[in-house]
Amino acid sequence: MVINFIMNTTADFSLRHDPTYIAQQLAQEFAQTAAERDKAGGTAKHERDLIRKSGLLSLSIPQQYGGAGADWNVIFKTIQIIARVDSSLAHIYGFHHLLIATVQLFAQPEQYANWFRQTAEQNLFWGNTLNPLDVRTRVEQINEHEFIFHGDKSFCSGSIDSDMLLCSGYTAENKLLIGVIPTSREGVGFLGDWNNMGQRQTDSGTSHFEHVKILKQELLLNPGPLSTPYSSLRPLIAQLIFVHLFLGVAEGAFEIAKQVVQPQKAWGKSKAEQAIDDPYIQKHFAEFYVQLESVRLLTKKALDALQNAWQQVESLSAEQRGEVSIAIATAKIAATHTSLFITQNIFQVMGARATTASLNLDRFWRNVRTQTLHDPVDYKYQEIGEWILTAKVPDPSFYS
Amino acid sequence: MVINFIMNTTADFSLRHDPTYIAQQLAQEFAQTAAERDKAGGTAKHERDLIRKSGLLSLSIPQQYGGAGADWNVIFKTIQIIARVDSSLAHIYGFHHLLIATVQLFAQPEQYANWFRQTAEQNLFWGNTLNPLDVRTRVEQINEHEFIFHGDKSFCSGSIDSDMLLCSGYTAENKLLIGVIPTSREGVGFLGDWNNMGQRQTDSGTSHFEHVKILKQELLLNPGPLSTPYSSLRPLIAQLIFVHLFLGVAEGAFEIAKQVVQPQKAWGKSKAEQAIDDPYIQKHFAEFYVQLESVRLLTKKALDALQNAWQQVESLSAEQRGEVSIAIATAKIAATHTSLFITQNIFQVMGARATTASLNLDRFWRNVRTQTLHDPVDYKYQEIGEWILTAKVPDPSFYS
Amino acid sequence: MVINFIMNTTADFSLRHDPTYIAQQLAQEFAQTAAERDKAGGTAKHERDLIRKSGLLSLSIPQQYGGAGADWNVIFKTIQIIARVDSSLAHIYGFHHLLIATVQLFAQPEQYANWFRQTAEQNLFWGNTLNPLDVRTRVEQINEHEFIFHGDKSFCSGSIDSDMLLCSGYTAENKLLIGVIPTSREGVGFLGDWNNMGQRQTDSGTSHFEHVKILKQELLLNPGPLSTPYSSLRPLIAQLIFVHLFLGVAEGAFEIAKQVVQPQKAWGKSKAEQAIDDPYIQKHFAEFYVQLESVRLLTKKALDALQNAWQQVESLSAEQRGEVSIAIATAKIAATHTSLFITQNIFQVMGARATTASLNLDRFWRNVRTQTLHDPVDYKYQEIGEWILTAKVPDPSFYS
Amino acid sequence: MVINFIMNTTADFSLRHDPTYIAQQLAQEFAQTAAERDKAGGTAKHERDLIRKSGLLSLSIPQQYGGAGADWNVIFKTIQIIARVDSSLAHIYGFHHLLIATVQLFAQPEQYANWFRQTAEQNLFWGNTLNPLDVRTRVEQINEHEFIFHGDKSFCSGSIDSDMLLCSGYTAENKLLIGVIPTSREGVGFLGDWNNMGQRQTDSGTSHFEHVKILKQELLLNPGPLSTPYSSLRPLIAQLIFVHLFLGVAEGAFEIAKQVVQPQKAWGKSKAEQAIDDPYIQKHFAEFYVQLESVRLLTKKALDALQNAWQQVESLSAEQRGEVSIAIATAKIAATHTSLFITQNIFQVMGARATTASLNLDRFWRNVRTQTLHDPVDYKYQEIGEWILTAKVPDPSFYS
Repeated sequence: MVINFIMNTTADFSLRHDPTYIAQQLAQEFAQTAAERDKAGGTAKHERDLIRKSGLLSLSIPQQYGGAGADWNVIFKTIQIIARVDSSLAHIYGFHHLLIATVQLFAQPEQYANWFRQTAEQNLFWGNTLNPLDVRTRVEQINEHEFIFHGDKSFCSGSIDSDMLLCSGYTAENKLLIGVIPTSREGVGFLGDWNNMGQRQTDSGTSHFEHVKILKQELLLNPGPLSTPYSSLRPLIAQLIFVHLFLGVAEGAFEIAKQVVQPQKAWGKSKAEQAIDDPYIQKHFAEFYVQLESVRLLTKKALDALQNAWQQVESLSAEQRGEVSIAIATAKIAATHTSLFITQNIFQVMGARATTASLNLDRFWRNVRTQTLHDPVDYKYQEIGEWILTAKVPDPSFYS
Repeated sequence: MVINFIMNTTADFSLRHDPTYIAQQLAQEFAQTAAERDKAGGTAKHERDLIRKSGLLSLSIPQQYGGAGADWNVIFKTIQIIARVDSSLAHIYGFHHLLIATVQLFAQPEQYANWFRQTAEQNLFWGNTLNPLDVRTRVEQINEHEFIFHGDKSFCSGSIDSDMLLCSGYTAENKLLIGVIPTSREGVGFLGDWNNMGQRQTDSGTSHFEHVKILKQELLLNPGPLSTPYSSLRPLIAQLIFVHLFLGVAEGAFEIAKQVVQPQKAWGKSKAEQAIDDPYIQKHFAEFYVQLESVRLLTKKALDALQNAWQQVESLSAEQRGEVSIAIATAKIAATHTSLFITQNIFQVMGARATTASLNLDRFWRNVRTQTLHDPVDYKYQEIGEWILTAKVPDPSFYS
Repeated sequence: MVINFIMNTTADFSLRHDPTYIAQQLAQEFAQTAAERDKAGGTAKHERDLIRKSGLLSLSIPQQYGGAGADWNVIFKTIQIIARVDSSLAHIYGFHHLLIATVQLFAQPEQYANWFRQTAEQNLFWGNTLNPLDVRTRVEQINEHEFIFHGDKSFCSGSIDSDMLLCSGYTAENKLLIGVIPTSREGVGFLGDWNNMGQRQTDSGTSHFEHVKILKQELLLNPGPLSTPYSSLRPLIAQLIFVHLFLGVAEGAFEIAKQVVQPQKAWGKSKAEQAIDDPYIQKHFAEFYVQLESVRLLTKKALDALQNAWQQVESLSAEQRGEVSIAIATAKIAATHTSLFITQNIFQVMGARATTASLNLDRFWRNVRTQTLHDPVDYKYQEIGEWILTAKVPDPSFYS
Repeated sequence: MVINFIMNTTADFSLRHDPTYIAQQLAQEFAQTAAERDKAGGTAKHERDLIRKSGLLSLSIPQQYGGAGADWNVIFKTIQIIARVDSSLAHIYGFHHLLIATVQLFAQPEQYANWFRQTAEQNLFWGNTLNPLDVRTRVEQINEHEFIFHGDKSFCSGSIDSDMLLCSGYTAENKLLIGVIPTSREGVGFLGDWNNMGQRQTDSGTSHFEHVKILKQELLLNPGPLSTPYSSLRPLIAQLIFVHLFLGVAEGAFEIAKQVVQPQKAWGKSKAEQAIDDPYIQKHFAEFYVQLESVRLLTKKALDALQNAWQQVESLSAEQRGEVSIAIATAKIAATHTSLFITQNIFQVMGARATTASLNLDRFWRNVRTQTLHDPVDYKYQEIGEWILTAKVPDPSFYS
């Protein structure tokens, strides 16, 4: 069975530099090896380098620093396109842009200007070691200008093979400090211990900081993490990346199921000869489609809300930020259910032969089943319900 | 328990002539008596006259005939607003606009110009006796210019107390002829036999034509029913009216559930004191909300597709018309499920006392349960599934 | 449409005194008027007298007092059979047996022997005014042997037209006292204010006690309410009655849907000619059936657990009682969902004509939607989940 | 995380030869390596030998041939116990008993007596190469007593490392012939090409018959396959094995989820400190439990129906056989949904850390997702629906 990973694209092929066209090209390349690379796990070095070469890492860098200054619609579309064929690569690619945004939200241009210029010039890939739930990395200030980060940090997606690293640690007073350093900084190491059932090429394992020296000017202190409604957009961008991962995976699974089913004969008991004419198979596909359409529209609404909030910069009110949070939580709930529903039930229409390991089609389910656990969807419901009944928006946190 | 039927409105209150503001005013009026009128059934004469006086019956009439020439966005919004409090009135009000559109789709301006001018001047209310599945009304041509319609016709929503009537019958050769006549035409009668579990004030009972004379110039023959892709938009407009009914009912039920729950104590076993803080109640409301948001967006997408197709007039291709059909079927499936889900499960959050007949809150469920049976939703799935798998759009019919 | 309410029965027709045969006969009688009586509401005096005459009121009375001494299997089966056609009558009939059991659980034979003998001899119908959540009925002791009950009590199912009354009130110290009196006792009155969307002939309205004198020997003090694991079976019997109501209603709705669909033509778009050959209709019925079968088996398991616990009398441990509670909660959750699912979705297979008020088929949904709100099903889940994770059985209460 | 695979057992530990106790012991052994063996795939040679040594392969052999002559209750219970920890081994172990039964159903004692005696004496393991949908193995009769089987056959569960083989092929007239041979017969080979996403140690790959000689006395011709209602029990036994696999997997997943959650802290936004006190986690477990209980009871009912039919031997009527078919289809539908639901949603309660490959907890989902595709569950619904509406039982086939 040869599956054609070229899906209907919204890319404008007349513009070879259209980011969605570029993402589409990358996706086709990634699709050829996605099944095998999922089995192998580890670092997708070759594909990471293709992303570097594509120029897409500069998409979110403002133009004054040499980037494309693309808006969030474009950035998220490229994440979604890649997620259709490989949600691990989409994840670390999306998190690169999250980290670029984090710096913009937690710090000032004078601090990040050079980082951004270098990123744009050299196509630097940013990696994440920020997990605020893991308190093992401790920070000690050793003089006015220097700090030492020491200890482990888990769930560090995209850290291996990164060029720049967003890192974090807690002081003795349990204040979270976040810094930006070159990944090559002395003392930075990675255990390479990510081996999970899904998102297998995200390198979301443990980082180790062995007395790593970080300068005060590398710390994001002004305004600092989640200090204002605007800076609190950071976790919302992360959540919206997840939404696009789930949506992309669901679209990819749907497309493949269609291609698998189209040439099949119907089951013996069916009154139809071809599977495409079987009433139950038709209904299953329609169920998938109705859910997909819902998620696409909820996601677009959430994205527009984020883009609008992003443009308001520090004038963004807590209430406005809260409404973006609700829109994203709404999309996330739907995307969670839909991606699990579709990736599980495509097998119902494809039949037993689609379980062959050579197709590795369970990876769609394993990927969303893993990534949807980032934080419990039950508490997304809880936040929305509370907001409906009391008008209270969710308190900003690294998960809301 | 006093329930406040004023919902958040999108009406622009600075414009007293904004149709959505007018619809909002009507809705507040209708809400006061909706529970009682549902029990009574029959013809909502007083409310129909309020609709006449409101001027909204001219909304869909092109400006050159004295109407408002509103686009479908505005027309459907007014239907949805009324449906939040009374889906019977929304139905017959929506069908009035459907009939105005039917004439535009099945006939030529020279034929309908006068009908439209009179409708706009006198706020005429149009009623429906078109049910194509009921073949009992037979047509005989008695001379070059005159036809006789004779027999019964069931499911004639909005026929009683109408001023104009779209009627239909089959010739001996089983050709469907559709005509427009004043309801006062001799021989037209209504059995007043609509007494169903929902949509109780739609007067969707049986009409009787006792040798009713209809002139050739009153028949819609050019281009006639469903004769082109464009004229085949008629059933899609009907389906989209249903979608707005379901959505409006779901919104109304949601809003009332919120108002009922907000002052309640939590159940004894809850760790919360107030119902609004109970985690299960919060989750239920969030489930309602996520579904409502999906339906709102799917409905908007379908509406935009229809508006776009409407503007293409006879240049509309079968393929383009088919895609509108798919968008509306998609919204209809979601609206069907969501409206049943919400109207059934609001009781789960409101508790036993909300079952009192004085509130009559089961009418929301009864209304959508009745109206969602217009044609089987299973075959909406079937059409979408077939389209996904074979690219074949649904064949136009009075139901697709 | 003539619907045949005779369902496949498990009654042994060779034994004219088989209680399930008698219940079957009653059910056929009740079925003829159930639709109309639902609309009328109020007290089903004629049908209550038929129940009296049937002898079934003595079913739960031990043989030494002149009753049938039937086990719970038989008693619940008669409730279920009646519920298939009329869940209001099944409710008050079931509650009669609940009240007989209540006296056995909360008091001693010497106290209730005479009540039971009279009940068996004269076919007395017991009514309920026990709602422990309504604290408005207050009790004052006026001398060593006499108490005064004064005030209102809501949700008093089966109180009107009863012969004996289980009543309750709170002392100044908020101790709940429960007594048994003839309904004719001076000062006992009923407001007749039950007018709700479902269970419309249960007379579940408000009782008023106007300084009603109750003797100490009429109070159930030894061992008193919920004082031991055994006496705490009372609420479990109530819950299991609800389960049988839900199951019976679901079975009745399923049976009628089958009869309505069997002669129908299939929808025009179906490849089948007859509705019974339509693949979607077939699947819907199978979905109903699989759920019904589950509920039947869960209900039987719960019933066996109750019967077993009942026979252990005061040797029943808290742990054993807790396991009965879990079995009944499990059945109740499934019965709640299934009865709502089936009563809502039978319309999907029956189509629009089944909404005619003359059939009044929405009463099935209205009845279970109302009765399933007795206490929130969410907290049945909560109790089961807590038991799974911590092995703690639910604390006995009037709802668990 | 150390997970304890000892589940509450119904085994009678006083009887060391109780088959369910033996199965329990095997299960504990298999559990230690199940996660790793799933990754490795291939033939579970060591575990197959443990099954041989356990004596359980004689469970279904009648006592006159040296077997245990156990009834189906016992046989299926042992399959279920093993499936809780390893559904691949449960599958090939269950299919061994299916093949023993197949011989009893398709042939006469004089033919199979020796096979059974040898199986009981030497603990022979039977393997399957019967897939009737794969027509590539062709049969040619070369003289009165000898036939040649030649060609490939796919989905041959348990064929590798088997001692006896049930094989099948089609004659030139497309008549299916089924034979029993020692696996060591010259020309029999296995491609070892089973590498699928689930049921990875079932060796369900391709067999190759290279001009394999089979004697007439090795063919099951009297009465032959599916020739009578009784012989048509064969596919029902196969289906009921699947039901026990699904149930066992669901029970295993549920048990592990419980053990994983019990020591966890609740999520930060929860009002509970421990996960076991979180209301959402409690509700999820209750949902799992209600479904599990339903499936356990439906499965038991189906099993009793099969055991009863089995005992009727050739007096079994087509109608009676049909009712067993319906009972098993009912259980299969519920077991399919429940096993998918639980194996997918345990992650929701366990959280992100449970996705580590070292636990390999996705194997539960992968196993049931694969095995539930044996034949489309949609047509199980179809059969039940048709039976409800028309009283027609499913026609016997290798899938119904």
